Amino acid sequence: MGNSIGKIFTVTSFGESHGKCVGIVIDGCPAGLPLSIEEVQIEVDRRRPDKEAGGTGRREDDQAEVFSGLFNGYTTGAPLCMLVWNRDADPHAYEDMRHMPRPGHADYAAHIKYGGFNDFRGGGRFSGRVTAGFVMAGAVARKLLSSIGIEIAAHTIQIGSVQAPPLATPDILHRVWDNPVRCADHDTAMQMMKEIEKVRGEGDSLGGIIEALALRVPAGLGEPVFDTLEGDLSKAFFAIPAVKGVEFGAGFSAAFMKGSVNNDKYIIEQGKIITATNNAGGINGGISNGMPITARIAFKPTPSIPRAQKTVDLKQMTEVELAIKGRHDTCIVPRAVPVVEAMMAVTLCDFAMMAGLIRGTL
Amino acid sequence: MGNSIGKIFTVTSFGESHGKCVGIVIDGCPAGLPLSIEEVQIEVDRRRPDKEAGGTGRREDDQAEVFSGLFNGYTTGAPLCMLVWNRDADPHAYEDMRHMPRPGHADYAAHIKYGGFNDFRGGGRFSGRVTAGFVMAGAVARKLLSSIGIEIAAHTIQIGSVQAPPLATPDILHRVWDNPVRCADHDTAMQMMKEIEKVRGEGDSLGGIIEALALRVPAGLGEPVFDTLEGDLSKAFFAIPAVKGVEFGAGFSAAFMKGSVNNDKYIIEQGKIITATNNAGGINGGISNGMPITARIAFKPTPSIPRAQKTVDLKQMTEVELAIKGRHDTCIVPRAVPVVEAMMAVTLCDFAMMAGLIRGTL
Amino acid sequence: MGNSIGKIFTVTSFGESHGKCVGIVIDGCPAGLPLSIEEVQIEVDRRRPDKEAGGTGRREDDQAEVFSGLFNGYTTGAPLCMLVWNRDADPHAYEDMRHMPRPGHADYAAHIKYGGFNDFRGGGRFSGRVTAGFVMAGAVARKLLSSIGIEIAAHTIQIGSVQAPPLATPDILHRVWDNPVRCADHDTAMQMMKEIEKVRGEGDSLGGIIEALALRVPAGLGEPVFDTLEGDLSKAFFAIPAVKGVEFGAGFSAAFMKGSVNNDKYIIEQGKIITATNNAGGINGGISNGMPITARIAFKPTPSIPRAQKTVDLKQMTEVELAIKGRHDTCIVPRAVPVVEAMMAVTLCDFAMMAGLIRGTL
Amino acid sequence: MGNSIGKIFTVTSFGESHGKCVGIVIDGCPAGLPLSIEEVQIEVDRRRPDKEAGGTGRREDDQAEVFSGLFNGYTTGAPLCMLVWNRDADPHAYEDMRHMPRPGHADYAAHIKYGGFNDFRGGGRFSGRVTAGFVMAGAVARKLLSSIGIEIAAHTIQIGSVQAPPLATPDILHRVWDNPVRCADHDTAMQMMKEIEKVRGEGDSLGGIIEALALRVPAGLGEPVFDTLEGDLSKAFFAIPAVKGVEFGAGFSAAFMKGSVNNDKYIIEQGKIITATNNAGGINGGISNGMPITARIAFKPTPSIPRAQKTVDLKQMTEVELAIKGRHDTCIVPRAVPVVEAMMAVTLCDFAMMAGLIRGTL
Repeated sequence: MGNSIGKIFTVTSFGESHGKCVGIVIDGCPAGLPLSIEEVQIEVDRRRPDKEAGGTGRREDDQAEVFSGLFNGYTTGAPLCMLVWNRDADPHAYEDMRHMPRPGHADYAAHIKYGGFNDFRGGGRFSGRVTAGFVMAGAVARKLLSSIGIEIAAHTIQIGSVQAPPLATPDILHRVWDNPVRCADHDTAMQMMKEIEKVRGEGDSLGGIIEALALRVPAGLGEPVFDTLEGDLSKAFFAIPAVKGVEFGAGFSAAFMKGSVNNDKYIIEQGKIITATNNAGGINGGISNGMPITARIAFKPTPSIPRAQKTVDLKQMTEVELAIKGRHDTCIVPRAVPVVEAMMAVTLCDFAMMAGLIRGTL
Repeated sequence: MGNSIGKIFTVTSFGESHGKCVGIVIDGCPAGLPLSIEEVQIEVDRRRPDKEAGGTGRREDDQAEVFSGLFNGYTTGAPLCMLVWNRDADPHAYEDMRHMPRPGHADYAAHIKYGGFNDFRGGGRFSGRVTAGFVMAGAVARKLLSSIGIEIAAHTIQIGSVQAPPLATPDILHRVWDNPVRCADHDTAMQMMKEIEKVRGEGDSLGGIIEALALRVPAGLGEPVFDTLEGDLSKAFFAIPAVKGVEFGAGFSAAFMKGSVNNDKYIIEQGKIITATNNAGGINGGISNGMPITARIAFKPTPSIPRAQKTVDLKQMTEVELAIKGRHDTCIVPRAVPVVEAMMAVTLCDFAMMAGLIRGTL
Repeated sequence: MGNSIGKIFTVTSFGESHGKCVGIVIDGCPAGLPLSIEEVQIEVDRRRPDKEAGGTGRREDDQAEVFSGLFNGYTTGAPLCMLVWNRDADPHAYEDMRHMPRPGHADYAAHIKYGGFNDFRGGGRFSGRVTAGFVMAGAVARKLLSSIGIEIAAHTIQIGSVQAPPLATPDILHRVWDNPVRCADHDTAMQMMKEIEKVRGEGDSLGGIIEALALRVPAGLGEPVFDTLEGDLSKAFFAIPAVKGVEFGAGFSAAFMKGSVNNDKYIIEQGKIITATNNAGGINGGISNGMPITARIAFKPTPSIPRAQKTVDLKQMTEVELAIKGRHDTCIVPRAVPVVEAMMAVTLCDFAMMAGLIRGTL
Repeated sequence: MGNSIGKIFTVTSFGESHGKCVGIVIDGCPAGLPLSIEEVQIEVDRRRPDKEAGGTGRREDDQAEVFSGLFNGYTTGAPLCMLVWNRDADPHAYEDMRHMPRPGHADYAAHIKYGGFNDFRGGGRFSGRVTAGFVMAGAVARKLLSSIGIEIAAHTIQIGSVQAPPLATPDILHRVWDNPVRCADHDTAMQMMKEIEKVRGEGDSLGGIIEALALRVPAGLGEPVFDTLEGDLSKAFFAIPAVKGVEFGAGFSAAFMKGSVNNDKYIIEQGKIITATNNAGGINGGISNGMPITARIAFKPTPSIPRAQKTVDLKQMTEVELAIKGRHDTCIVPRAVPVVEAMMAVTLCDFAMMAGLIRGTL
């Protein structure tokens, strides 16, 4: 249960890290969207690991494949099933730690929940690999959103203790892909890579923060009181493994502000109503207000580290020491940038369809 | 759209700030739960404004009323409709600012979304008053959760720049109701009240942070990959007006940690598997791991402030100055404590029912 | 669970026969629909019992009341809560048969399902009285549908063994309200009333069949493969107490036909593509084809009859004889006509919104 | 939209007649169910065409394949993706009638709905071939149901004008697979095959009626007022192409009965409460009452017939004559028997999980 997201533009995820494949079914994509497998592949490629950016040595030259819903280069209105096959998997690396839950991973919680029947290889369903499906869905959602002018961008603003300075939106849009850590500031990016290299040497791992932007979102998206923009975006972000915090606009720092400072004054600029500041992150009362939507998403450090860690043997009920073998990311934050964009796109696409901005069927 | 939450234990909200009433319908509450209106009233009373704690002068001596689903002191399995009537409303205070969206409020976004047809009086559907319904639903959810041993508690840990020190769980449970700001630390509470008093004098307002705990949650709740515990809890929290950030466990601070520090080691204590630390906030892979669930929720300062603010006149399309009349909370954080508990309870109740821990129908 | 219907135009039902009230919450009604309580009242009045038409002696001069979602004569986009109060209830008539399930009623199944906690008075949640809520929702749905030209009509085509002859659509539209049995053919109506009178005298009851039509439905409504027009309409009809069969177009008689007869040929008439016959009932592949949608709904005879019946005493586990006291409808079919219309309207309104024909929010 | 069914045991369908494959994703199947691909294959094989029973000449030696959710012979609690590949397709047969909607088919309605972008080859998404996915889902659902003792069976009771006599349940269970038309009465089966042969010779087609039974369903399943057993079962049945009517128990014939006849008296037999008759088809108030659930499903004749038919050319807007080439079923009723069983199983499985009878996760 719980493997579908979206009310009208609904994405269902399936597949495990070391099973046959990882994929998604999109139900609700309007007919008539021109779509090529190459466009989907671009998104899949963007989440490939890059060693300089903390990526795993596992080769993931995934080829996206469309199984249904596409005909003569256009979506048909029928469910779009897309997947990538699993290759280069090394399940034996996991067999001997079947009964030793890796700290920071879902192993233990999943073992209890599924009575030990879950596919534990490589984290199975809880592996970051499921996000290969998310970005395929994101590719479609972004294309639909771009048809109404909405652009989505995410960038790394923190890795470990290295933080990027505030950046102007054009810089974010144009420079984020200049370096493998997906940081729009060149100097910070260099420092981040150094930090990753250093921590990799220590047999340890790093977390970080990604900022996500949605530009040119018209006012009026969101369905409060429960299906708020913040609520559904945060739910979508928390589906990305390792996310532990989400904030919008001024977020947690708003708790320190006074109302007179935090309130975004309305002004008229070039005949349009905008706010002078954007502490609201483009959202009031759970509804977009026409300003850019801004969110920050906190990622914990990769739980898989080469260093020995304490855990328990579930069978023997004894405390043991565990050294995780296999190849793992030192920092998954750069690889999560396209995933954050995908989840933002999928969510906004659903709201845009609910609001009638993107034509549904008929 | 968007006014229902929960898949099995479903809460539908209705009502506006200055309409006839504010209420909820709960669908999915099992039959046979002993429930009295007094138990619901306790939760309604807990969100009453207290002037010392930054509350409005508006009198809200709400009386909860059950409209359906209760018979001879027990729930029947039919939808529970409960509401509080609106009294002491002063709609005229809002009439003259109909076309002047209050900065920080939902006025503008709602005006665009609903084409000007939304009930703007007192924020209408976007008023904190809708949370009177949330706590009624929470009263039922908490009772169901307590039947399986789960206890929920929230407390104020920050108001403006006044922050509470780390507190032990028993202190939180026993001292949070000792003072009107709902802070479990006496000295901090006194400072918070002083800060509120000061800022009220300045014609300004304050935000803050609430921490929420769920104790004795069994491992295995949550339905990843999309219906994660973090995702659905954060969605529920973001339904509370003024929430701008949500984090679990170490949250945003995990971004600064290394994996070796952030990973919670599994140990055996009194024959039970627990983690030595709880940076995960009781959640791995979107599933409860048996440790306490911990979340922090950031509230922006109350947008309604007596001070004059800049905004625009939507009819004239001119920039104007707006002085908000009426009686408003200087800080809504203390009043939001029971609301945070309610939303946590409603969400966990839904997951517990999905997992079969709380008997559904039959 | 299960008390909401519709994906975008969502109706949640609450209330019991002898509780405080019977009502509904509509979530998803667009803002800006002019709506008066009088319009809703008209639908409520249409399901009033009429003794000549087999109705109960119970007086039901229900007054519809709007609790939320309406402001200055227009819908606001917020949930519409509407209800009728219960009056003139005689619960004592039911107390002594609490443990004796009435044959043909839901008493026994509900007793098992809800562990005896269900409100059994007058059938509680299973009473036809809940349909007072349905027609209030229907009033709103019909108004939305009429804004895009869709008209809905239902009429009685059979009561007991008295069947109406085939009738032309204009006759149905204009004559159905000429008599209390809601049969568009005058002579048949007279016979039906005689039949009802006779069977009432026998202490027995009658069932019948209602035909429902939706006119000017554009081609393209329906969301196959699962959310078909037939599927969701039939689900909506089966929510009406006593319905035991639903068919569309030629329905069961199509089973006797050959393909060459049943297939509706496409022809061009006045520049428009139509079908020469309408055995499909306006639906192909679960999608409207532009022809009138036609459905027939079978109602079993009212289970409450004055005659003594055999049942069991659940407490004593003995077979007993039961004489149902109180005032009951001899035939509920005429009163169900507006309810059938309401459920058809609610369902088509949901599909029309999904297809973007009726503007949602924004 | 609309390609998922079930609230807890959720089946999502994808794939087209002449695309790559036809498949399903099941979300909500509990972990730990032993499942082999052979068990799924049995159901896939049962819907294979048989020429004697009116089947197409198209070879469909489908091999079911599991893509996710199965590990070491057990379900894992993760989504089960299963599919069959399309082979032996002859899309060219359809190309030249792209703009000529086949009477009785979804072609025209789909063309309008999807703006001409739908995959029209072989009916695409509207082909009976999608039911290959339904029976794979049914295989899993039946296994879950059988774990709580529920057995499901369907049989052909009418083809064209040939009707089977009333049959005892044991006969139905044991004889339905004795002949290719799936009729439990030998003599009727012989007549049905003769009728099919005759009508095939005429270049025409036949419809029919299938009866479905669910045995040993405990009282208490169903979630009224909207998610009734009848409502959700009928919705599931109407997802099967060509279904035009559904009735439960006495169904349409109940409209002719008096209450004293239709009401099922409660009696005690061997210490258990049962009803003496089963006009209710095992359902009262939308809830199972412990008696066998019985439904009858009407199928229209196959719309594809070799005979020339009148239709329009959508491009030229002229009336034309169309001769459908390719190989088609003369009567799909026998092949629909396992599909009816599958949809009944999927629906009851969902209700059984909602009622907590089948363990969900945890």
